[in-house]
Amino acid sequence: MKIAILGTGIVGETLGSKLVELGHEVRMGSRTANHEKAVAWTKKAGARASQGTFADAAAFGELVFNCTSGTVSLEALKLAGAENLKGKVLVDVSNPLDFSKGFPPTLSVCNTDSTGEQLQRAFPDVKVVKSLNTVTAGVMVNPAKLSSPTDIFVAGNDAGAKKQVTQLLTEGFGWKRVVDLGDISGARATEGHMFLWLRLYGALGTADFNLQIVRA
Amino acid sequence: MKIAILGTGIVGETLGSKLVELGHEVRMGSRTANHEKAVAWTKKAGARASQGTFADAAAFGELVFNCTSGTVSLEALKLAGAENLKGKVLVDVSNPLDFSKGFPPTLSVCNTDSTGEQLQRAFPDVKVVKSLNTVTAGVMVNPAKLSSPTDIFVAGNDAGAKKQVTQLLTEGFGWKRVVDLGDISGARATEGHMFLWLRLYGALGTADFNLQIVRA
Repeated sequence: MKIAILGTGIVGETLGSKLVELGHEVRMGSRTANHEKAVAWTKKAGARASQGTFADAAAFGELVFNCTSGTVSLEALKLAGAENLKGKVLVDVSNPLDFSKGFPPTLSVCNTDSTGEQLQRAFPDVKVVKSLNTVTAGVMVNPAKLSSPTDIFVAGNDAGAKKQVTQLLTEGFGWKRVVDLGDISGARATEGHMFLWLRLYGALGTADFNLQIVRA
Repeated sequence: MKIAILGTGIVGETLGSKLVELGHEVRMGSRTANHEKAVAWTKKAGARASQGTFADAAAFGELVFNCTSGTVSLEALKLAGAENLKGKVLVDVSNPLDFSKGFPPTLSVCNTDSTGEQLQRAFPDVKVVKSLNTVTAGVMVNPAKLSSPTDIFVAGNDAGAKKQVTQLLTEGFGWKRVVDLGDISGARATEGHMFLWLRLYGALGTADFNLQIVRA
């Protein structure tokens, strides 16, 4: 299918390349067309990869991934345009990490709200599914690189949208355990996981890790 | 050894009973002496269990567990008295859960601060170690009830205090994997885990779960 990637960072690049590899046509969007990193990515990713503005990508994609920083996602989606996003599933991979006061970053929104909810409120005709934001880019598209199966989360208001994303996670990316955290307010949980994730990143000395939920 | 438990809720009761079972003398402290739940607990827990005010318990204990709600911990520790706590290790098991707006609760402090840090700042002569607050009471003292080994965290400014708490966690409670998250600001991570914990509690339909950190 045709997929839009909003954002040219390592997350957008990694997801875009994997989606091309899976046979999808992928257009990477940025603030301006011909962004240096987007152009470099299309050359690397091959014939099914293209690039343009946020609006170009959003208009192109039947499915849209928000891979911009959560602190600017609302602005990026406004540039993408409500008319280009209308009725589509938006996989929100963002975290509202605020590095303005150094490392470790704080969250620009948390506790009583989240980026996922902000986006859903601003674009009520879009089906926002929060997912993948609890792991580093390399793990998102290759969960099997970890030594045991781990859990990934989906949260969103539209059951059909979550089903579609879950199918891509399992059949496309190889996730074996997808936990549905309920409506889009579940984004508070996965974005709030950044607090623990960042500390574990420091303690473990690697970003290649994830959680396995263990029950009795 | 002599151990103080501040708080008469399920966490205090569960930890207190396990510590008595391990051979320690345990005094449960509450706002008032002869608190109904504290008295009931001493009858159940046996000869090594006693109860009194927060100050009675703090004076008694060589090691102190804060099992009050994080929203009132600062007040409880003031009642316990800085002079009774001075130089001691305080295991802070609290979470600042604010249920005033219903379920799910929000956190009364997070992101840029935590209950653990608040307590450490207010009682600089106490060695605060944040731990155990990422799991339900029954798992705290019996991690083996889960189907695979899972991870528990310690955070605090004093290496010796963390070592002492880690020893109790491993040799006393049976934890096999203890992750040191660094200084007391790591409490932001474990208290912030409540966002995900509460959602998982809803999704899984049980509080008997925990995380196993899985690496590449």
